[in-house]
Amino acid sequence: MTTDAPGRRQVTLRDVAQLAGVSVATASKAINGKAEVSPDTRRRVLDVAERLSFTPNALARAMLDGHTGTVGLLTHDLEGRFSLPILMGAEDAFGAGRSSVLLCDSRGDAIREQHHLSTLLGRRVDGLIVVGSQTDARPPLGSDLPVPVVYTYAPSTDPADASVVPDNVTAGRIAVEHLLATGRRRIAHVSGDLTYAAATDRAAGADAALAEHGVERVGPVRYGSWSEAWGRSCVAALLEQDVDAVVCGSDQIARGVLDALHDRGVRVPDDVAVIGFDNWEPMIAGCRPALTSIDMNFQMMGRRAAERLFASLEDRDPGGVETVTPRVIVRESTGG
Amino acid sequence: MTTDAPGRRQVTLRDVAQLAGVSVATASKAINGKAEVSPDTRRRVLDVAERLSFTPNALARAMLDGHTGTVGLLTHDLEGRFSLPILMGAEDAFGAGRSSVLLCDSRGDAIREQHHLSTLLGRRVDGLIVVGSQTDARPPLGSDLPVPVVYTYAPSTDPADASVVPDNVTAGRIAVEHLLATGRRRIAHVSGDLTYAAATDRAAGADAALAEHGVERVGPVRYGSWSEAWGRSCVAALLEQDVDAVVCGSDQIARGVLDALHDRGVRVPDDVAVIGFDNWEPMIAGCRPALTSIDMNFQMMGRRAAERLFASLEDRDPGGVETVTPRVIVRESTGG
Repeated sequence: MTTDAPGRRQVTLRDVAQLAGVSVATASKAINGKAEVSPDTRRRVLDVAERLSFTPNALARAMLDGHTGTVGLLTHDLEGRFSLPILMGAEDAFGAGRSSVLLCDSRGDAIREQHHLSTLLGRRVDGLIVVGSQTDARPPLGSDLPVPVVYTYAPSTDPADASVVPDNVTAGRIAVEHLLATGRRRIAHVSGDLTYAAATDRAAGADAALAEHGVERVGPVRYGSWSEAWGRSCVAALLEQDVDAVVCGSDQIARGVLDALHDRGVRVPDDVAVIGFDNWEPMIAGCRPALTSIDMNFQMMGRRAAERLFASLEDRDPGGVETVTPRVIVRESTGG
Repeated sequence: MTTDAPGRRQVTLRDVAQLAGVSVATASKAINGKAEVSPDTRRRVLDVAERLSFTPNALARAMLDGHTGTVGLLTHDLEGRFSLPILMGAEDAFGAGRSSVLLCDSRGDAIREQHHLSTLLGRRVDGLIVVGSQTDARPPLGSDLPVPVVYTYAPSTDPADASVVPDNVTAGRIAVEHLLATGRRRIAHVSGDLTYAAATDRAAGADAALAEHGVERVGPVRYGSWSEAWGRSCVAALLEQDVDAVVCGSDQIARGVLDALHDRGVRVPDDVAVIGFDNWEPMIAGCRPALTSIDMNFQMMGRRAAERLFASLEDRDPGGVETVTPRVIVRESTGG
């Protein structure tokens, strides 16, 4: 036994930082997988953390209780647009390389979901995160499950279940507030499929913000499909109504609106500002000009889902729906 | 014991079809999760299959040996563009709801990969599929692993390992053959990052096809980045060289080329044909006109990876690199 061994005392972040020769802040960043830390430093800190058997709080307590830091993620999101950032956020909740999320793709199919559910339960996952394909509520996975479940993206229809969902009403609100703050007053709204709560929630938030500022929406909310083609097809009518800004229900719709404005020689943002939702990189990357978009914070959704799972293991989670606040990512398409 | 029970005789697909009151073909489609079967019929067939303990061949044998039909998939593909279709193909290899693929995201990080590897091995997976982030060879996961491993998208650097990879040389070849077959002779090539094997392999195949037909490439292969902006920026120079077709190293590059041609009033496909690679739906969906693209058959890659894993369990896999043949999806951008 060496004299500097921390013995049975709870190992703290300070112990890890000291032995690794870095500040507590750097040790924290390294353990939480932040980008600002160099790979070498991170490796050194993680090595020390492992040597001292240091684990951050919620996960540490769960592991002392015989849990393993492994979470099953059942997704219905075929493209991975929501589920992969949610997966990353869930893993990052407890620091790099300390937990594992196992994703199973259920493809909107209840039989597959039940099959994957029993596979995951047979593999000692500490809990389950369910990712819906749209934000409308979905039935619970089942009753009497042996592990806690958190529903993300789509909430459970049972309000007592733990759900972590995007706040689409606030998303619509902050899109309009950003446009108003940059001097726009002739604001139109083009959105996707009317049967999606994401479409109507965003419109409700946008309308509330307009009403509070005494500004009237230009024309009806134009519901259609979540596609570039739909965005393009609306532009002629929008220009007849002399709009100076368009709220678009998704980045794909916004891309279509931008392309059609470009074709007509309408200057963005000088003549018309355009804003999208989702901040989806592959779609954003090609936009001319770069698209301002509302980021729904999927990684934060995953992080909160994981934190609530581990809180549930200690009976500390109150259940119920929690929303994650979106934020505006300002780029050239709305000026600034 | 009832007289119609199949007893200890091996249950066949014919038994399942008879009891479910459908044809053998329909029973096969239902079990293999094909779209042509109604949900009701599928459920009935799967119920009967389960009642009779029917399982298709390779998986059935593996399960008799105590395996569970569960495969771990370690991916480095952040966007899920390759890994999700590969996951689906792997699950479909054995029919709907009979196997589960558990995906772990390693994010190009060796520490994470090792952590996920030990998590999956601790959870009784029958084997592992590793999905690279690019097609360049990668080092093997480790030696003395207790389960077989198949490398997909990127092969293992050890030629004895089992790898299933896209055939980018053939992809380049069939892109050019399609353009030649539709009467194009002034063919240019715009591609992505020169350090990616996918870029140089596709160019090598394209050049081979041109050479065989005695046609000279117009200008150098223009390597740049995998972006729309790069595609757009090349168009002025291409038009000066009087091209009648452009092979684009990815759908994103093709999208940029299409947009810049559209801006200049160049008609596609009348004046210039455009072809991309990957057949990536979110990018294809917005193209004007609809983009012809080479589909790399990621689902087939997943299916073959799963089949080889289960063959390895019976020592029937010879190891080595297997390529999956791509195909042209013809749309308006190359005429026809």
